[in-house]
Amino acid sequence: MSDQINGAQALIRTLVDSGVEVCFSNPGTSEMHFVAALDQVPEMRGVLNLFEGVATGAADGYARMAGKPAAVLLHLGPGLGNGLANLHNARRAWSPVVNVVGDHALPHKLLDAPLESDIVAVASNVSDWIRTANETKDVGRDAAECVAAAIGAPGQVATLILPADVSWGEGGEVAATVAPAGRAVVDGARIAEVVALLRSGQTCRLLLGGVVPASEAGLRAAARIAAATDADVMLECFPTRLRRGAGIPAFGRVGYLSEIAVDQFKDVEQLVTVDAKVPISFFAYPDKLSTLVPDTCVATKLADHDEDGVAALIALADALDAPNEITVQEPVAGTLPEGVLDGTTTAQVIGMLIPEEAIVVDEAITSSLMLPFTTNGAPAHDWLTLTGGSIGYGLPTAVGAAIACPDRKVLCLQADGSAMYTIQSLWSMARENLDVTVVIYNNASYEILKMELQRVGADGATGEASQSLLDLGGPVLDFTALASGMGVSATRATTIEEFHDQLELALATSGPSLVEAIIPKLF
Amino acid sequence: MSDQINGAQALIRTLVDSGVEVCFSNPGTSEMHFVAALDQVPEMRGVLNLFEGVATGAADGYARMAGKPAAVLLHLGPGLGNGLANLHNARRAWSPVVNVVGDHALPHKLLDAPLESDIVAVASNVSDWIRTANETKDVGRDAAECVAAAIGAPGQVATLILPADVSWGEGGEVAATVAPAGRAVVDGARIAEVVALLRSGQTCRLLLGGVVPASEAGLRAAARIAAATDADVMLECFPTRLRRGAGIPAFGRVGYLSEIAVDQFKDVEQLVTVDAKVPISFFAYPDKLSTLVPDTCVATKLADHDEDGVAALIALADALDAPNEITVQEPVAGTLPEGVLDGTTTAQVIGMLIPEEAIVVDEAITSSLMLPFTTNGAPAHDWLTLTGGSIGYGLPTAVGAAIACPDRKVLCLQADGSAMYTIQSLWSMARENLDVTVVIYNNASYEILKMELQRVGADGATGEASQSLLDLGGPVLDFTALASGMGVSATRATTIEEFHDQLELALATSGPSLVEAIIPKLF
Repeated sequence: MSDQINGAQALIRTLVDSGVEVCFSNPGTSEMHFVAALDQVPEMRGVLNLFEGVATGAADGYARMAGKPAAVLLHLGPGLGNGLANLHNARRAWSPVVNVVGDHALPHKLLDAPLESDIVAVASNVSDWIRTANETKDVGRDAAECVAAAIGAPGQVATLILPADVSWGEGGEVAATVAPAGRAVVDGARIAEVVALLRSGQTCRLLLGGVVPASEAGLRAAARIAAATDADVMLECFPTRLRRGAGIPAFGRVGYLSEIAVDQFKDVEQLVTVDAKVPISFFAYPDKLSTLVPDTCVATKLADHDEDGVAALIALADALDAPNEITVQEPVAGTLPEGVLDGTTTAQVIGMLIPEEAIVVDEAITSSLMLPFTTNGAPAHDWLTLTGGSIGYGLPTAVGAAIACPDRKVLCLQADGSAMYTIQSLWSMARENLDVTVVIYNNASYEILKMELQRVGADGATGEASQSLLDLGGPVLDFTALASGMGVSATRATTIEEFHDQLELALATSGPSLVEAIIPKLF
Repeated sequence: MSDQINGAQALIRTLVDSGVEVCFSNPGTSEMHFVAALDQVPEMRGVLNLFEGVATGAADGYARMAGKPAAVLLHLGPGLGNGLANLHNARRAWSPVVNVVGDHALPHKLLDAPLESDIVAVASNVSDWIRTANETKDVGRDAAECVAAAIGAPGQVATLILPADVSWGEGGEVAATVAPAGRAVVDGARIAEVVALLRSGQTCRLLLGGVVPASEAGLRAAARIAAATDADVMLECFPTRLRRGAGIPAFGRVGYLSEIAVDQFKDVEQLVTVDAKVPISFFAYPDKLSTLVPDTCVATKLADHDEDGVAALIALADALDAPNEITVQEPVAGTLPEGVLDGTTTAQVIGMLIPEEAIVVDEAITSSLMLPFTTNGAPAHDWLTLTGGSIGYGLPTAVGAAIACPDRKVLCLQADGSAMYTIQSLWSMARENLDVTVVIYNNASYEILKMELQRVGADGATGEASQSLLDLGGPVLDFTALASGMGVSATRATTIEEFHDQLELALATSGPSLVEAIIPKLF
């Protein structure tokens, strides 16, 4: 059997055996045997994307919700470049991604053909595990090890470069699954150390990050710890995935604005991190510190990124004899606000309408500021964030989340400017008939940059030249037309009532839809 | 004076002094002082693009037509990733590009902030010249040397990484222009060597590439050489820029399909290259050679990429005492074809309508096959090609060409699949009111990949899984809606007459427009 299949077939069969079921694809000529091999391995679902950034963002969203990797199939160095921004976000989410990059046949690489470039250099931006498959007989093994590398705690983008001749060569061999490195268990000594800290009488804070806030068990353990001690609990600014809503312990998140974060941490003496870094500011600003906690604050890791933070929290709660009765978020029905449609009122309406077990993908940028407060009491749901700060993650991540969880509604809250980086995602939503409702906040401006312009002290820049680089008017984008052009039905709302009614209808209807909210500028 | 400006102002002022007038921009927070500085240096035109691949492709198109570099402004490693594919094409066109990549402030880089990544690694994929500006006082000098590196023969993407604090720091100094390395002159001995070859009685061919076919003087010299000897002249498959049309010597191009190219070269004994590589196939195929010329063919460089190929051709023609009377292309009016609207008939209509001195940007892919033959006799025009093979170059390159040459009509011939990689270009055309007419060939398919699937021998792949990755139907893209959503007026043609009338009107109307040609699949 093994001598009757080519490299591509061995690769895909091995991926399937290793638990990889979906391949987000944007192939070219050098990937044609991979594409052909999909006919031989029907267990692998190939999903076409019209741009590589959609494929990589979808793989990130899939991984965050499925808890296991999808593959992506990219075409040479330029294809990897196009996919890099969302692989960056995946890296910062610790998302496992099996990143297959097709390459020229090995002898062809010596000729410096037009599409030849240094793929390894580009991949090194996002992957610590990079391998070129050099022999057809080994490509199955390479694939199995790539999956294990991707899954190995805490998860990463693992890049397998696949030369065309290795793919088309005969003699591929399906390889056995390779066991990935699991999350290490935090030992009793570390638990005891943190118990002592929490009982020291100092002002203590638990900071949860990465995938820990995704776990209701983890959040409940943190709530037990808070109930048994004087410590409080906070979540990092952009965790990989966050479980929240009615019936679930609700914790505040570190502010994006460093001024707010510094205030949040000013009294903390002992910071205990759980799959989280000590907070730093997103960007540097003149005359502002990049570190957000006081110099006097002592940081201690309860669990590092590759350790089992949820189990550590449970062990810590037990070691503290913490009560099982905890405070959880009460349901909040919300009422229709009055006034103009803006970031605040859209957030209030969304809080009224989030469906039970929805997956919310948040790239609302400046329109997201009120969302944490207006949606806390919605039915239980999961929330995905812009972990790496590279915009254009929202729509693709929604594609991947919807494929990972076909029985759940995905609500993608998407700013206008960042939507345009990967707007091709809408076509994939239509093609795959995904149950995604997209809200576009159209204020015709890069409002975040106008804010940042002030924050970096360049607020004297009020000239036409500088302002024109921050303005999305002239012409104002029409997202209902863009959606229509890609087969997604769309409506436009200019009042609170319209927004409520259109979003309610969209959420009640299966399949992709888009509601464009016309909102005023902030600045 | 010099101690009163910040790094960004010194940088931009130096760029302007060095002849850089346009900056295609997609900035983020770390670039806000660069943006603010544009108000202080009105000679620099900032052009906002909604996606980095538009900015980098526009810089390529600008350089090809202006003969000098534009700057691009990108945001950190992910922004550079998004721009990489079109920088790859620029690299393969030897286009000078001043590639400014903003970075975190230097102290902030040590903190591994969410957007931190290895920018140098990514840049090394497209740039041999990479520098990080480390001190505000030196950033002017860095900019001047970056421009010189970009322009230096034969031209390249030069990358200057600009940390935010170097940008905002005071004490910037405007630097003097640095003289770039010019094209070396080919010496008389080499000319004499080639004269001897051409008179050897062997079958000789001149192969012109790079920027040589952009020069009418170069083409005329080549025609003189052909008239004086038995040598023929051919152009490489994808030159940087090609001057052609009525009144200009017309030469064939090397075929994209290796089967055709092998046939074109089978009798050549002596190949003389002028700013061109010995032809190789674009991709490798099982059981096919990647080299396209016979083993027995001897290749000799008349001029290397960094030498003055046009001057060498003129010197060669003179050394041969070649006549000044040459054969040039006769004008061909063309007549309206009959039948269905398809790749052939659209090409015939385009041949009838190309305006005098138009700039044609060709990313028509499978719909381009007949274009060389139907447009040869159109009024004189310039033709830009997909030098690096990374699709998504057409629309952005049209943006840049239109900004470089505001008095000329740009005709962008664009396939549907590749259009979607950088569809955001349409907004820039509307924003800047560029005189670009876009033809979209909508066959709802990656037809080139269906052809390549057969050519790589994977033509047994007829299953639903493989075919779905090559098909753009379900839903079919509506490019008139997409154009409308970005402020570009558009029409759809389904017959030859409609296509003719719509294209004629679009070309006669100033400003951006789009004609969507609905054509059948080839396969």
